[in-house]
Amino acid sequence: MTYDDKFANAIADLKQEGRYRVFADLQRHCGNFPRATWRGPNGARDIVVWCSNDYLGQGQNSEVLSAMHEALDTYGAGAGGTRNISGNSRAHVLLEDELASLHGKESALIFSSGFVSNEAALSALSRVLKGVTVYSDELNHASMIEGIRHGGAPKRIFRHNDVKHLVSMLKEADPAAPKIIAFESVYSMDGDIAPIADFVEVAKTYNALTYLDEVHAVGLYGEHGAGVAEATGTMGDIDVIEGTLGKAFGAMGGYIAGSSVMVDCVRSYAPGFIFTTSLAPVIAAGACASIRYLRQHNELRVKHQERAATLKRKLAAAGLPVLQSQSHIVPVMVGDPVRCKAISDELLSVDGIYVQPINFPTVPRGTERLRFTPSPFHDDEMMDQLVAALDRIWTKARLPRAA
Amino acid sequence: MTYDDKFANAIADLKQEGRYRVFADLQRHCGNFPRATWRGPNGARDIVVWCSNDYLGQGQNSEVLSAMHEALDTYGAGAGGTRNISGNSRAHVLLEDELASLHGKESALIFSSGFVSNEAALSALSRVLKGVTVYSDELNHASMIEGIRHGGAPKRIFRHNDVKHLVSMLKEADPAAPKIIAFESVYSMDGDIAPIADFVEVAKTYNALTYLDEVHAVGLYGEHGAGVAEATGTMGDIDVIEGTLGKAFGAMGGYIAGSSVMVDCVRSYAPGFIFTTSLAPVIAAGACASIRYLRQHNELRVKHQERAATLKRKLAAAGLPVLQSQSHIVPVMVGDPVRCKAISDELLSVDGIYVQPINFPTVPRGTERLRFTPSPFHDDEMMDQLVAALDRIWTKARLPRAA
Ligand SMILES: Cc1ncc(COP(=O)(O)O)c(C=O)c1O
Ligand SMILES: Cc1ncc(COP(=O)(O)O)c(C=O)c1O
Repeated sequence: MTYDDKFANAIADLKQEGRYRVFADLQRHCGNFPRATWRGPNGARDIVVWCSNDYLGQGQNSEVLSAMHEALDTYGAGAGGTRNISGNSRAHVLLEDELASLHGKESALIFSSGFVSNEAALSALSRVLKGVTVYSDELNHASMIEGIRHGGAPKRIFRHNDVKHLVSMLKEADPAAPKIIAFESVYSMDGDIAPIADFVEVAKTYNALTYLDEVHAVGLYGEHGAGVAEATGTMGDIDVIEGTLGKAFGAMGGYIAGSSVMVDCVRSYAPGFIFTTSLAPVIAAGACASIRYLRQHNELRVKHQERAATLKRKLAAAGLPVLQSQSHIVPVMVGDPVRCKAISDELLSVDGIYVQPINFPTVPRGTERLRFTPSPFHDDEMMDQLVAALDRIWTKARLPRAA
Repeated sequence: MTYDDKFANAIADLKQEGRYRVFADLQRHCGNFPRATWRGPNGARDIVVWCSNDYLGQGQNSEVLSAMHEALDTYGAGAGGTRNISGNSRAHVLLEDELASLHGKESALIFSSGFVSNEAALSALSRVLKGVTVYSDELNHASMIEGIRHGGAPKRIFRHNDVKHLVSMLKEADPAAPKIIAFESVYSMDGDIAPIADFVEVAKTYNALTYLDEVHAVGLYGEHGAGVAEATGTMGDIDVIEGTLGKAFGAMGGYIAGSSVMVDCVRSYAPGFIFTTSLAPVIAAGACASIRYLRQHNELRVKHQERAATLKRKLAAAGLPVLQSQSHIVPVMVGDPVRCKAISDELLSVDGIYVQPINFPTVPRGTERLRFTPSPFHDDEMMDQLVAALDRIWTKARLPRAA
């Protein structure tokens, strides 16, 4: 058997399980979000994107774009080196200052992506804190799981958002040993929100470091968009806040914020930070402009929440199985990967509605779903069209309605 | 001891070893590469950058920049999602097509960085090829080491560029078991080049998959800039070619190229590819324009090699301990971390010459060095100024001259 035969077999396994992924070929219309052009088997057509994580349409914000045009003319295209070897610029320094200030922390550090920030920070912290145990929520994102795994420290998994379960583990632990509690604020597939204040209290009692992934919350929650920790008044009690520049901020890249010495440790010890070309200055400048804009425009967040609540109400009124999430994320449950893909295909080709099916391993098997992310730019008409299309499909296929 | 005390101790360790890194605050002058502004303790001054990995100044190429301005207006800032969930665009598809064509392969796949491409691809390939052993050059880059480690397959390290040593290991191995031989073409710290044809022959004899990191060679070697494998006529025999968009191509991001099924496996199985926001379309468009440009402008590569040869000659003529590397990389050996940093500091503050000291862990202890990367834009006058400054420092400090 050749190597290519082995690779072909591994691909055949995925196809048989119904979880082989085909990427939709899209072209977003800058200035006309959430509209885009989709190139399908029968040519190009205009569609409405319903599953973008550019939650507030900042990818087309004119202040962001003009900061990027300007940065291109000032700095050129790429950074030209790692942060340490010629790849550090004003744009990086200003962005880190902005992020530290957003989160009310001494320092911040940027990475190529949110994935890399979790991988690099969690693995470095696990190595620097000798003898540490990491307590990790069972639904934590792949990037946190990888970071914890690569750090090599013992890991204990507590049930999702279950503070009591965590406490029962901490009670058994050596009080003198270092501990990290790693969790997210908004869980992106169910849209539920962690009880941050409770986790903080537990962390204080058991002297643990808190590591909070706010990837699906930065830009979106809190008076200045610093996240759920800002909104709940717990930001000052979180030791490490991790976020992305690629979702609500509309650019790309990731970061951590916290005490100067903690950030300095990750900066100095994480291979995933040290040995890579730094973020292109044009991206750093765009992210920085976006953060500044969102700090001052709380009305976008208000509108965003209103749109999400409206969509949930409309879906529920039609008897569709929408999860009444606490957040801006609107999951409609299907529970079967093949069915889920078929619905998504019909919505796209018949209705010009693009929502990617969410299957294993992104969610557990049997909980396959459509995950809608209404933005301030999704109007009532788009919502009514979406609900009507789903209603038609549900009726035709006799899919179960909400209880 | 608080967590911050532990972090402070870890930082103190680095400072004591003389390997704590301070990032130079730079602002590149787009259109005037390699000149930049440096903000130091006594304010801002103009300097010449001598250690950029934007080897050909593509970061300021006007075709690259106009492609990026245009992409910003077409696509907006970020991709808004993972490749699978709304983050795939024309810009990504076109870039992957261009890369596959550049390397004469069926397929290519892009990642957030070259680091991520090595980490994701090597770990996924190690997992998909059950029972594989990875044979790795002892000087392989941190990102390859991490990828191999994270894949969890057994690893055997052969002496740097030592084909005989590799063969001795392969002779002992089970002939039926899968094998990956992982190595680089241009090693970026010494500037030496792997005997690719010999490795290919060995791989054929022992039925191993070849994985070649061309990060410091793409754009720079071969008639079309596909790398050393193109230049040596071995490209068709390499199974996986890995490269970066962040060095000679002047943007950011990384990639692999190879057979469709191999690429599809990495696309489908690597968490570092799947669970992250895709490259910003503006970056993808810039990288694509840069590759296209460099495929057609071999004269830039000719000039680049001439500049590197000239600098090596001038340094040698002054009796400075330059490594006569086979490539465009020009290392001047110092052999002591504190001395190395002091020379770099003096060059920057006195002469306006920026070259970062290269210390452990980037190079082995005792081989600390200054690493110069002359580009087609470094003229004779800049070189003479550099050689004079080094000569003065070497004389003043009675540093050892070349034999
Ligand atoms: C919870 C969570 N953390 C981290 C990430 C990674 O962020 P990025 O897309 O910037 O790599 C994601 C999504 O991609 C995520 O959902
Ligand atoms: C040999 C080698 N491979 C991979 C990388 C990573 O590439 P990138 O900077 O695009 O992450 C580097 C340098 O950073 C490198 O020197």
